[in-house]
Amino acid sequence: MNLKDYIASVENFPIDGILFRDITPLMANGEAFKEACDQMKEFAQSVGATVIVGPESRGFIFGCPVAKDLGIGFIPVRKPNKLPRETVSIKYDLEYGSNELHMHADSIKKGDKVVIIDDLLATGGTVDATIQLVKKMGGEVVGCSFLIELTELKGRDLLNGVNVNSIMKY
Amino acid sequence: MNLKDYIASVENFPIDGILFRDITPLMANGEAFKEACDQMKEFAQSVGATVIVGPESRGFIFGCPVAKDLGIGFIPVRKPNKLPRETVSIKYDLEYGSNELHMHADSIKKGDKVVIIDDLLATGGTVDATIQLVKKMGGEVVGCSFLIELTELKGRDLLNGVNVNSIMKY
Repeated sequence: MNLKDYIASVENFPIDGILFRDITPLMANGEAFKEACDQMKEFAQSVGATVIVGPESRGFIFGCPVAKDLGIGFIPVRKPNKLPRETVSIKYDLEYGSNELHMHADSIKKGDKVVIIDDLLATGGTVDATIQLVKKMGGEVVGCSFLIELTELKGRDLLNGVNVNSIMKY
Repeated sequence: MNLKDYIASVENFPIDGILFRDITPLMANGEAFKEACDQMKEFAQSVGATVIVGPESRGFIFGCPVAKDLGIGFIPVRKPNKLPRETVSIKYDLEYGSNELHMHADSIKKGDKVVIIDDLLATGGTVDATIQLVKKMGGEVVGCSFLIELTELKGRDLLNGVNVNSIMKY
């Protein structure tokens, strides 16, 4: 099956000039959703993941099934004021403005082999910030897996040295 | 295994006087996360779900693994301006202010048997609004499944007539 058949391309969303890759038709098709999750699971398994990390909220969509299938834990990366206990955090610049991500300070243990899962690799800012949080807690990022990679934005270059897997490229 | 052992209770979060039930330790434990997802999957299967619906973002955490395991679709319920195509929406009142939820207008087909999955049943406002959106599109809600039910808040009464499953009660 060609998973790209289940991606809707929507012009001018969320702002003018952006061609948005809408993954909801893939999620809505049981067979396509299972196939995408299974491909990400096989990558995570092949690099020896002991824990899956995923940024809210679309990282949860693929990261949680992968963690569940492998019988390993899932650690969420969240916006400010969402996690109730002590966190580690990082701020990073966006094209306009900045973003701040948090993880619980006790969520990653020294020696954990982490695979970061998200729906989209664009410029790589979010995943680069997440890698830094994982490293701060003593975890090792053994790979990153994305449903979609927008190759023109060269996010892969920013993640220099990390094993990057993507299911579809545009 | 007692899944309650993996819930952290945090006082005065997100505001004074609230005892927050933190599910992240359960998610971080592969065995506990798998067990919780499997229990929700068994419920969804027993009521004949043909599609899973989950509100962002914590509904994704359990709803996506259940959908993936059953080989059926997952439909997200999202805040305004997140879904790129035509949506149906509903506004509902919170204790202070109001909330608005959206689903893609083509996401539920007439005759779909829907199970709604979320982490928490509190007053039931979010799930009641979600039920109304599903019905508006011609779907049938055959059940709702929650990791945690806060029984004092009587959300179950608001969902009168719906088959409600919860994995843990407080």
